[in-house]
Amino acid sequence: MENKRIVSGMRPTGKLHLGHFHGVLSNWLKLQQEFECFFFAADWHSLTTEYANTEGIRDSIREMVLDWLAFGIDPEKSTIFVQSQVPQHAELNLILSMITPVSWLERNPTYKEMQENLTAKDLSTFGFLGYPVLMASDIIVYKAARVPVGQDQIPHLEITREIARRFNYLYGEVFPEPAALLTETPKVLGLDGRKMSKSYGNAIFLSDNAEETRKKVMSMVTDVQRPLRTDPGEPDRCVAFTLHSLYVAEEKRAEIVASCRGAQIGCVDCKKILAQSVVDTLSPFRAKREELAATPSLVEDVLAEGAHKATEEAGQTMKDVRAALKV
Amino acid sequence: MENKRIVSGMRPTGKLHLGHFHGVLSNWLKLQQEFECFFFAADWHSLTTEYANTEGIRDSIREMVLDWLAFGIDPEKSTIFVQSQVPQHAELNLILSMITPVSWLERNPTYKEMQENLTAKDLSTFGFLGYPVLMASDIIVYKAARVPVGQDQIPHLEITREIARRFNYLYGEVFPEPAALLTETPKVLGLDGRKMSKSYGNAIFLSDNAEETRKKVMSMVTDVQRPLRTDPGEPDRCVAFTLHSLYVAEEKRAEIVASCRGAQIGCVDCKKILAQSVVDTLSPFRAKREELAATPSLVEDVLAEGAHKATEEAGQTMKDVRAALKV
Ligand code: SF4
Ligand code: SF4
Repeated sequence: MENKRIVSGMRPTGKLHLGHFHGVLSNWLKLQQEFECFFFAADWHSLTTEYANTEGIRDSIREMVLDWLAFGIDPEKSTIFVQSQVPQHAELNLILSMITPVSWLERNPTYKEMQENLTAKDLSTFGFLGYPVLMASDIIVYKAARVPVGQDQIPHLEITREIARRFNYLYGEVFPEPAALLTETPKVLGLDGRKMSKSYGNAIFLSDNAEETRKKVMSMVTDVQRPLRTDPGEPDRCVAFTLHSLYVAEEKRAEIVASCRGAQIGCVDCKKILAQSVVDTLSPFRAKREELAATPSLVEDVLAEGAHKATEEAGQTMKDVRAALKV
Repeated sequence: MENKRIVSGMRPTGKLHLGHFHGVLSNWLKLQQEFECFFFAADWHSLTTEYANTEGIRDSIREMVLDWLAFGIDPEKSTIFVQSQVPQHAELNLILSMITPVSWLERNPTYKEMQENLTAKDLSTFGFLGYPVLMASDIIVYKAARVPVGQDQIPHLEITREIARRFNYLYGEVFPEPAALLTETPKVLGLDGRKMSKSYGNAIFLSDNAEETRKKVMSMVTDVQRPLRTDPGEPDRCVAFTLHSLYVAEEKRAEIVASCRGAQIGCVDCKKILAQSVVDTLSPFRAKREELAATPSLVEDVLAEGAHKATEEAGQTMKDVRAALKV
């Protein structure tokens, strides 16, 4: 029987925005049709960088999972859970830490990069250094065959594969080496043209209402080399137009490109069209989200059920791990 | 109410020898009269150095716990368990890893020393670097007030105290800072005069029978500057005499010192006296051990009950930890 299992996690950062949707969630929706998926809120991972500021994690999980459910991540099809509620992640993490050379972690390209980028935080903790070990545990504790990753995450998955290989070499074949399921993710720009991110304050959230969404779209940066309505514009230089590509139908888009280049359309009108498309696309989701949020225990129940299923599966793996390890 | 809780672990290395008895076990026996003790087999710790060679860990635990029980560690008084059977050790380890600076671990004096001494093994693993974090978890997951340590372990306990303090500082007061309960341990020499150790092949095991014990005692190195029976000897230079101090009554010992210095007693006769004392002291224990070993499920039952109690206590602590951490 083919192993159709996939594991993927998201750090709980609160309400999701368009970047999350096009980056991960839309991909999860496709995967859940074809694979046996384990989707989790990676709250332990949040601690690697947010250990000094854990205040909002619980709410963030709730908001994020509401977004998942509203968009169609289906607890009947997929196992949806919170990492910290499945103790086997921590157990396997401890075991894998014993066989992982420190040098593998130090050469992790993201390690130094993140330390350099997030200088405001003290990231020289043992847990931060070890987060690829935890990531390996998250994946192989379910004996996943595949992991959806973007190009930039390939090195991490390589460490996971190396750790799985080393375990198998030392104790006998227990884990499949999870293969990368390379996903193409359009880079979603925020209102100001930087990468969309909650912390930059430039995000359109999936749960923003029509009013908020419209306002944000209307504030998006356009072609800065088109100061006047009468100047011809260039969609390739326009931040707003990156969203047109995702939300406006192809035919209409071709029309806009021509009108922009010919100065036949102004940016205000052009963004009104975009705003309407975004609002139309998101509104059924928003309605669904409100409906789900009206049952306060819903998220909790889904996560309890998910933790139960995940714990059972992870527990099976840990039996094999202990048998192999002879402890 | 005063916190009378103590935690102490031993790595499972198999049958215990006289060095273990005088180093740790005799001390545990005293502590159990006065304190609420958690005694555990530190099998996760074994993995820090023995990850490539886990074959014997299970048997080692059984043999070690049989020794504990035979000597009087009492499951009615103390909680006796195996570290890997209480998942909260791994969970707290993961959490504490997030707040422990790598630099605290790198400056751990034992770290480099062990790496240098055990060059035959590859000890540059992440888990080996992090074993003070695991040790901190082992202790504070029971909110222990005290930890019995030898002088040489004081630096480790200091890291534990620092980690507990840092947790309390970041998330609010959850853990007491465990105090050192300094224990005096006579250095027990092996047959050849080096420190008694299973790996040196110079150990007298608590479970050795009378025959084996006698043979080993008779093979002990004596005063090397006394080649002839007619030469005067010096007990202070005699390896065997270090055991006289522990096993031969004071009066008899004074007699031996005089006779040795006066060449009135030969080493063979002198060691016969010692051998008899050691055998007499250990034989009730050995009988008890055989009796216990006759019930094959006994150790398993004791450890299952212990794991249950420990898991309950550790689970209580983890509730407080999660509340403080807000995850
Ligand atoms: S008209 Fe549209 S595509 Fe052209 S610059 Fe303005 S907003 Fe961008
Ligand atoms: S007589 Fe006894 S104490 Fe003296 S050297 Fe011989 S064994 Fe040691």
